[in-house]
Amino acid sequence: MLADDPLGAQREGDPNDPRYMAAFERIDADPWDELIVAERDGKVIGTMQLTYLAGLSRLGSERCQIEAVRVAAQARGEGLGRRMIQWAIDRARARGCAMVQLTSDKTRRDAHRFYDSLGFTASHEGYKLTLG
Amino acid sequence: MLADDPLGAQREGDPNDPRYMAAFERIDADPWDELIVAERDGKVIGTMQLTYLAGLSRLGSERCQIEAVRVAAQARGEGLGRRMIQWAIDRARARGCAMVQLTSDKTRRDAHRFYDSLGFTASHEGYKLTLG
Repeated sequence: MLADDPLGAQREGDPNDPRYMAAFERIDADPWDELIVAERDGKVIGTMQLTYLAGLSRLGSERCQIEAVRVAAQARGEGLGRRMIQWAIDRARARGCAMVQLTSDKTRRDAHRFYDSLGFTASHEGYKLTLG
Repeated sequence: MLADDPLGAQREGDPNDPRYMAAFERIDADPWDELIVAERDGKVIGTMQLTYLAGLSRLGSERCQIEAVRVAAQARGEGLGRRMIQWAIDRARARGCAMVQLTSDKTRRDAHRFYDSLGFTASHEGYKLTLG
């Protein structure tokens, strides 16, 4: 699903590369990191990663960071992404997080309308520096 | 230093609030989370938080997320912020991180010129949803 994406297609490798499994195991072992999958008929049709970031600001409150939101091609247009993000918001609120945050590539215009409609505000610039 | 900031002043509480210490202890115990301080003459003049985020994409590579960059009022204009961020970039590269990322409030125009000059690209929208 990571590779089945206009941006992701250029940067992924062999799914059997052991580095993927090592990253999975680290996330799985980290109490503040969750990989969420949506399943239908035993098949994974959506994924996202939630990380609960500690911080000193805002009275030491946690933030929930959403990364790597992907919906399988055959499941798009059915509102699954909306249900996933709403689920993440509800989960963050139940944990007592002060904020949910994510960044979205500026070329993904549809995604921006989607996050706007869920109550997010594009209040920040999302800066990235790729290390060579 | 969190409160000595146009945005931070509105959202911080009593520095002795035990929630600050609890958040500090969590960060201190987390191997993927670092609070960095810059000192001069035994006084803290700059802080930032580095979190090494696991992820499955890009061959399971880590990203270094920078949060909570603050420079004390009496130390501004001396290039300390630049040295701190460059230090963070060097540290992330030495760890093998694929990327350094951060978000910056769209009202902080000076900060944007600063991050642009350090090689960052404002390629993403930074979405936030404050939970009430």
